[in-house]
Amino acid sequence: DTQFDPSTHPHRRVNPLTGEHVLVSPHRTKRPWLGQTEPPQQADLPPYDPKCYLCPGNTRAGGQQNEKYEHTTVFENDYAAVLPPPGPAAPPAPHPLLTTEPVQGGCDVICFHPRHDLTLARLPHKDIERIIDEWSAIYRKRGEEEGIEYVQIFENKGAMMGCSNPHPHGQVWSLSAVPTLPAMEISNLKRYASATPASDAPRGPLGRACLLCDYVHFEVGVAKAEGRVVVQNEHWVALVPWWAIWPFEIMLLPYNRHVPSIVHLTTDEKTAFADILSQVTVRYDNLFSCSFAYSMGIHQRPTPPHSDAIPEDQDEENVAHLHLHFAPPLLRSASVRKFLVGFELMAEPQRDLTPEQAAQRLRDSSDVHYLGIPD
Amino acid sequence: DTQFDPSTHPHRRVNPLTGEHVLVSPHRTKRPWLGQTEPPQQADLPPYDPKCYLCPGNTRAGGQQNEKYEHTTVFENDYAAVLPPPGPAAPPAPHPLLTTEPVQGGCDVICFHPRHDLTLARLPHKDIERIIDEWSAIYRKRGEEEGIEYVQIFENKGAMMGCSNPHPHGQVWSLSAVPTLPAMEISNLKRYASATPASDAPRGPLGRACLLCDYVHFEVGVAKAEGRVVVQNEHWVALVPWWAIWPFEIMLLPYNRHVPSIVHLTTDEKTAFADILSQVTVRYDNLFSCSFAYSMGIHQRPTPPHSDAIPEDQDEENVAHLHLHFAPPLLRSASVRKFLVGFELMAEPQRDLTPEQAAQRLRDSSDVHYLGIPD
Ligand SMILES: O=P(O)(O)O[C@H]1O[C@H](CO)[C@@H](O)[C@H](O)[C@H]1O
Ligand SMILES: O=P(O)(O)O[C@H]1O[C@H](CO)[C@@H](O)[C@H](O)[C@H]1O
Repeated sequence: DTQFDPSTHPHRRVNPLTGEHVLVSPHRTKRPWLGQTEPPQQADLPPYDPKCYLCPGNTRAGGQQNEKYEHTTVFENDYAAVLPPPGPAAPPAPHPLLTTEPVQGGCDVICFHPRHDLTLARLPHKDIERIIDEWSAIYRKRGEEEGIEYVQIFENKGAMMGCSNPHPHGQVWSLSAVPTLPAMEISNLKRYASATPASDAPRGPLGRACLLCDYVHFEVGVAKAEGRVVVQNEHWVALVPWWAIWPFEIMLLPYNRHVPSIVHLTTDEKTAFADILSQVTVRYDNLFSCSFAYSMGIHQRPTPPHSDAIPEDQDEENVAHLHLHFAPPLLRSASVRKFLVGFELMAEPQRDLTPEQAAQRLRDSSDVHYLGIPD
Repeated sequence: DTQFDPSTHPHRRVNPLTGEHVLVSPHRTKRPWLGQTEPPQQADLPPYDPKCYLCPGNTRAGGQQNEKYEHTTVFENDYAAVLPPPGPAAPPAPHPLLTTEPVQGGCDVICFHPRHDLTLARLPHKDIERIIDEWSAIYRKRGEEEGIEYVQIFENKGAMMGCSNPHPHGQVWSLSAVPTLPAMEISNLKRYASATPASDAPRGPLGRACLLCDYVHFEVGVAKAEGRVVVQNEHWVALVPWWAIWPFEIMLLPYNRHVPSIVHLTTDEKTAFADILSQVTVRYDNLFSCSFAYSMGIHQRPTPPHSDAIPEDQDEENVAHLHLHFAPPLLRSASVRKFLVGFELMAEPQRDLTPEQAAQRLRDSSDVHYLGIPD
């Protein structure tokens, strides 16, 4: 009888945050690739581009003029996916299967830095901290608006990931409903909290077990030798989760204590956050010596209740644990990506190299950016 | 007070097959696009390509030689994502959150036709019927293998959708587990069957309500004027579902009676299936005058139980209703696609034009292929 070897035998893993499976087919990395290749990532961008609608002082697609910003700047998306309240009420459903739920909110764009050519991977830590401050400010401000239930901070980086402008920027969509994925995660965190005895890991509200605290405590502790951790500092860890879908997917989270959201970070934790964001994005760029495309999203607690009636640590609803997901498509080189298509769209996500192999490759990447220090 | 207008006001719709939401932002179609454009789809392929590893008589990447097939041909994928049984047992989970489930099965490739240049959209109906026969044969054969629980038939068409060879072909992955998405659909079909009183629509096993029978009965009946139906024949209908995610997503299904799987189709229903497959793929190609990329998948009942102990119409497990999903990425033209990225990956799918607008565009497309009849 052969022994089960995760880097040889096809198997499925469960994502406890969503309850969904991923099919791992490690032997499949040998497959030749004759399909679509990606155009080379633009690496030689100028520090300022007069035609860029995000550079300081330039005019945007919608006609407005950007501030001559020096660090970060935020403005409302000229083509927002949701509009401010009030909106009309929903019509009655013509059939129980055809329901309509009106949704309101706002969409913000955040330019990370005036420099057109400096992504997170190339910014000094001080500038990354300013971005974190900006994220916190938007999360707080939007969260205080009447009716806003969730503030989704994200970044699409690279043309391959639908980004329409290489000027480093992220987005924030704030909605009157908790979107599907965070809602799913929160409901699984709740289920876990009420079904699992507390361990020696940090704990969530009411002293209950937190799925992410438990998971990450295991990964940075006894499981360290299994090698899913990519990089770790005093407060944060970046790892390729057990259930990763994208080839070099990373989850980034604080591991010392239960942290509901970005506004709960201490000054030290914020500094460590900037450090790990830099370390992760530098390793990503170094992996294939290119500006590494990804979508990134921050998951955290739905916007705080508008009253302080219940203290945070006694608030049963307060189960979210701050974490970031990075979903990068590249698989083999700067030009060959993984396609999540037919089987993945119709049945379930499938990956080739194992999460442990991916983490190893990322650990082996240099922590000094291949382009050196920018002028 | 303004009235709610689905083609103006942002709203969310629920997909009852998955329980997930889609955010509809119809006003957003006005957004300018400066991002990545797709390379032109190859439209001038030769009928035979000596370098193609799927053309009749040629040698494949793995070294095997193809038959000189005249209609369709099937072979095992040289780089299968799952391997035949038996495999070793799973190791014990190192932590309750880190479970491993071994999976076995087989992966087949089906070449639709010897002609390198003829996609479904350009094949005569007789040849499409042969493909349907081949799908039925594989579904039956794989389903009879020990341990196989689900047979996932799909097609990735176009380089944009990860297809590595333009020679028209599909795939079949047969697994020892029901994958996430069909499992989710089936559990929602079951929940619906036991919670919903039977209507005058066709019904599932035990005379219970079937979510898809009910839905499609409504769409081809009283809702016809709302315009989600793209094309309909005697047995089948193609529609842009109320909850569509992809810009021109289509669901294809038989509407006259409850049909669990492809092997349950009558001869007439099979002929009508070939007809509607042709009509849909022709309209797709005509929409932007290109070979329209998509991923397609067939959802149907998990493989039949290996005993006939329970008659089909009394089998509670037999709730699946045969249907096909088409997930095509193009949005505005042959070169501008929709990216399901940051917000979509991290929060929930978002679409710009409404399903009703998409259906209108597809209805307005000609049902005669823009390239005319092949020689
Ligand atoms: O098997 P193929 O066609 O080489 O590969 C394609 O389809 C598979 C199933 O959807 C995907 O896993 C691959 O990423 C994709 O490139
Ligand atoms: O808003 P952008 O950057 O123009 O658009 C990009 O991100 C959005 C949010 O993930 C997506 O809906 C778009 O498809 C994508 O192109």
